[in-house]
Amino acid sequence: MAKEVTRRQDNYSQWYNDLVVKADLAEQSAVRGCMVIKPYGYAIWEKMQQELDKRFKATGVKNAYFPLFIPKSFFSREAEHVAGFAKECAVVTHHRLMNDPKGKGVVVDPEAKLEEELIVRPTSETIIWSTYKNWINSWRDLPILCNQWCNVVRWEMRTRLFLRTAEFLWQEGHTAHATSAEAAAKAEEMVGVYADFARNVMALPVIVGHKSPNERFAGAIDTLTIEAMMQDGKALQAGTSHFLGQNFAKSFDVQFANKEGKLEYVWATSWGVSTRLMGALIMSHGDDNGLVLPPALAPIQVVMVPIYKGEDERNAILDKMYEIKKELEKDGKSVHIDDRDTLRPGFKFAEWELKGVPVRVAIGPRDLAAGTVELARRDTLEKVSASVDGLAATIENLLVDIPNNIYAKAEAFRNANIRKCDSWEEFKEEIQKGGFLLCHWDGTPETEQAIKDETKATIRCIPVDSCVCEEEGVDIYSGKPSKRRVVFAISY
Amino acid sequence: MAKEVTRRQDNYSQWYNDLVVKADLAEQSAVRGCMVIKPYGYAIWEKMQQELDKRFKATGVKNAYFPLFIPKSFFSREAEHVAGFAKECAVVTHHRLMNDPKGKGVVVDPEAKLEEELIVRPTSETIIWSTYKNWINSWRDLPILCNQWCNVVRWEMRTRLFLRTAEFLWQEGHTAHATSAEAAAKAEEMVGVYADFARNVMALPVIVGHKSPNERFAGAIDTLTIEAMMQDGKALQAGTSHFLGQNFAKSFDVQFANKEGKLEYVWATSWGVSTRLMGALIMSHGDDNGLVLPPALAPIQVVMVPIYKGEDERNAILDKMYEIKKELEKDGKSVHIDDRDTLRPGFKFAEWELKGVPVRVAIGPRDLAAGTVELARRDTLEKVSASVDGLAATIENLLVDIPNNIYAKAEAFRNANIRKCDSWEEFKEEIQKGGFLLCHWDGTPETEQAIKDETKATIRCIPVDSCVCEEEGVDIYSGKPSKRRVVFAISY
Repeated sequence: MAKEVTRRQDNYSQWYNDLVVKADLAEQSAVRGCMVIKPYGYAIWEKMQQELDKRFKATGVKNAYFPLFIPKSFFSREAEHVAGFAKECAVVTHHRLMNDPKGKGVVVDPEAKLEEELIVRPTSETIIWSTYKNWINSWRDLPILCNQWCNVVRWEMRTRLFLRTAEFLWQEGHTAHATSAEAAAKAEEMVGVYADFARNVMALPVIVGHKSPNERFAGAIDTLTIEAMMQDGKALQAGTSHFLGQNFAKSFDVQFANKEGKLEYVWATSWGVSTRLMGALIMSHGDDNGLVLPPALAPIQVVMVPIYKGEDERNAILDKMYEIKKELEKDGKSVHIDDRDTLRPGFKFAEWELKGVPVRVAIGPRDLAAGTVELARRDTLEKVSASVDGLAATIENLLVDIPNNIYAKAEAFRNANIRKCDSWEEFKEEIQKGGFLLCHWDGTPETEQAIKDETKATIRCIPVDSCVCEEEGVDIYSGKPSKRRVVFAISY
Repeated sequence: MAKEVTRRQDNYSQWYNDLVVKADLAEQSAVRGCMVIKPYGYAIWEKMQQELDKRFKATGVKNAYFPLFIPKSFFSREAEHVAGFAKECAVVTHHRLMNDPKGKGVVVDPEAKLEEELIVRPTSETIIWSTYKNWINSWRDLPILCNQWCNVVRWEMRTRLFLRTAEFLWQEGHTAHATSAEAAAKAEEMVGVYADFARNVMALPVIVGHKSPNERFAGAIDTLTIEAMMQDGKALQAGTSHFLGQNFAKSFDVQFANKEGKLEYVWATSWGVSTRLMGALIMSHGDDNGLVLPPALAPIQVVMVPIYKGEDERNAILDKMYEIKKELEKDGKSVHIDDRDTLRPGFKFAEWELKGVPVRVAIGPRDLAAGTVELARRDTLEKVSASVDGLAATIENLLVDIPNNIYAKAEAFRNANIRKCDSWEEFKEEIQKGGFLLCHWDGTPETEQAIKDETKATIRCIPVDSCVCEEEGVDIYSGKPSKRRVVFAISY
């Protein structure tokens, strides 16, 4: 095989890194914690963006762009937000370099110190609400429904490609509303958009739920989340949507005149997903041969590999492939013919398996004579002989079946790894095995913190779907009464 | 009228600013020199991106993403590049804030000083070539054709919305090739893509040419440009494509084994256009009533304004409008019905004129009875009565005619303001009147610099199309012999 991939059972974390790097998705850069997203990885991200953007716009959201930099003082405005975001961040203090007077190279010009330091945005609530202040006067100006696609920076100490990087790409939606109910509904609507995208585009069986107070976004009244289970049983938070109440409006003094002419503070939401979704995609569906991509996100949906000896066979097979490609492209499929003549078919098969291409078509001289192809699907690695007549329909069916199959597989895995747990002794043991534990919780931050301190497990969410959790019981840790179970897990 | 716009003849610069701000394209932010791109402005930029991206991909270019930050030392590597780009830039020196021990608010944590300062990218040649070093071993790895859509920062002292801002959005293409000829051809191909986009999407009659050495990109062997003439006669550089030779490959030691197994340095290009194109669009076509948008970039191509008294008329007219909208949308047109009932039709007319919507459809009760609409085109402000039967075709024709007309108008203006100039005395006078002067130049940087020092005019380009310039003559300033005329102008 071309590029050896570590097996999941041997070293899950190394397997993940191998997939990211060897499938040409991303790599470390010369800048600590910042990644380079390579063309193949970026093509997947672009497809995610298109699918999400379409869904956002369908809800009335419009894109805009706000500054990269935030004045330092803005972080002092919203009390909780300071604590949550103004810590590890990139601080711009100067605006000029100069030639080193003592020698070669360049140095920072000490004369060019900024009066107020600028922070590279870790998230944009503050700069956006300072802008909304100028856009909002009356109820007629509401709602405002903006989203931006951009880069953000959080100075993480331990980074992992896609999962946790100092710089990452994301979208952040920021909406402003006249009423609490409307804002809360928007936050719910947007987590619904994320769940729809995760399930129907990424084939991820996510659980939707509320965050506990400890896990809420800094400055939020309520945080909704979609949580996915990775193949090592850990949880990955794949997207969040926040109801921010009037916190940012009050911090930035954003009021509107209601229909009665009375001034009120504006109600807010924010919601985001990031390149972290790439990590979720890889870890949910990948196997020991490499990536397994759902067709909706695959840069190449069908790859064709010719098997031949000599020029004549090669030409005849490639001619047939161009014919098939043309027909598939008419249906909007993305097709690649791997006509490199310095590599063996087996090498190519392994490479496209590594890259997760959903469907592979191989044609050799005997296929050509018989009017057949060898059709391989990436998810099950099954190979069948298929007739060239009706091949477009056969492939269309496969491209419908594959996402259904990988969703079902991921869902079965998740369901097999969700279990109820009712004692603290059992919890401490079970949580180390991975998976989601459905436990009773007394609702206090103190209990959650104590459980986290002892086991590293956190409440991933208080589910609103996917699990039946409404039942009376007692908290596994404190023994206090509880009205429902919540999802505990170790998370990325 | 809703929002008063300064007339061009009264104050061109104020007119420009009025259009940007009052048509809701962009505004200044709380961060010095950084702008907020508002949803209406961003929607135009998104359309530009889509049209450009499509064209890039058709040439084999793929998108990728490289880090926001560049280690300071990278700027010392390419000698000319240092001088050109490592000056006014945003310098990150620290990675943490902390609560002020002396009181409220946050301060920079002095303990969190970076070992090496990071520069927010002003352009990405250095970080990208440090990455390409790992991607390139043999001729088989070439060419590499990458583009990224991103934000960049150049610490400009005097900023103007879209034209010159500290942070701006752009795309930067970076390609790597095995031969000089292939790289030079790519740089030419990409300026051709820009010219095609400018002419056929933006309706800008740009001139394509080479930059003189003084105006070249820092580190380039040759810079190709598209130059547009604004309505005040000034030039605006709308896009550039650089042949970089082996300069960056040598600075970052990027070599490949050629087919004979011998190591050679790689050949490079880079090319970019930015949100500055928004400025070019506004200043080329706008008039005293506001923006004039070419249909291909208009977020709303057809706006419909009902004229009514009372609910019954309103409902009947809106019903008819929804019918028409549906039909137009079937053809892929973007249509908006302005059904706000608190505003007069005249106010709405002015607002949509300000926003540059290409076609306006108004329907009053008499139109409804007669089966007609009032059709107004934004470019000429002409109004005609048109039959509802066949309206889709009538509008389709208008949407084809409008870009042709605004292109022709801009071209006629440009041609009327290009003139030959053969004496230094005449030059000093003529250049102040605006427009492009076709002059002989002796080919030396010294003469160009002297002319710039005395008049602020620069050589915008040595045209390769749009003007007949090949003729013998003598330099207007030095009197030395010259083989061709070049374009001089005062520029943005």
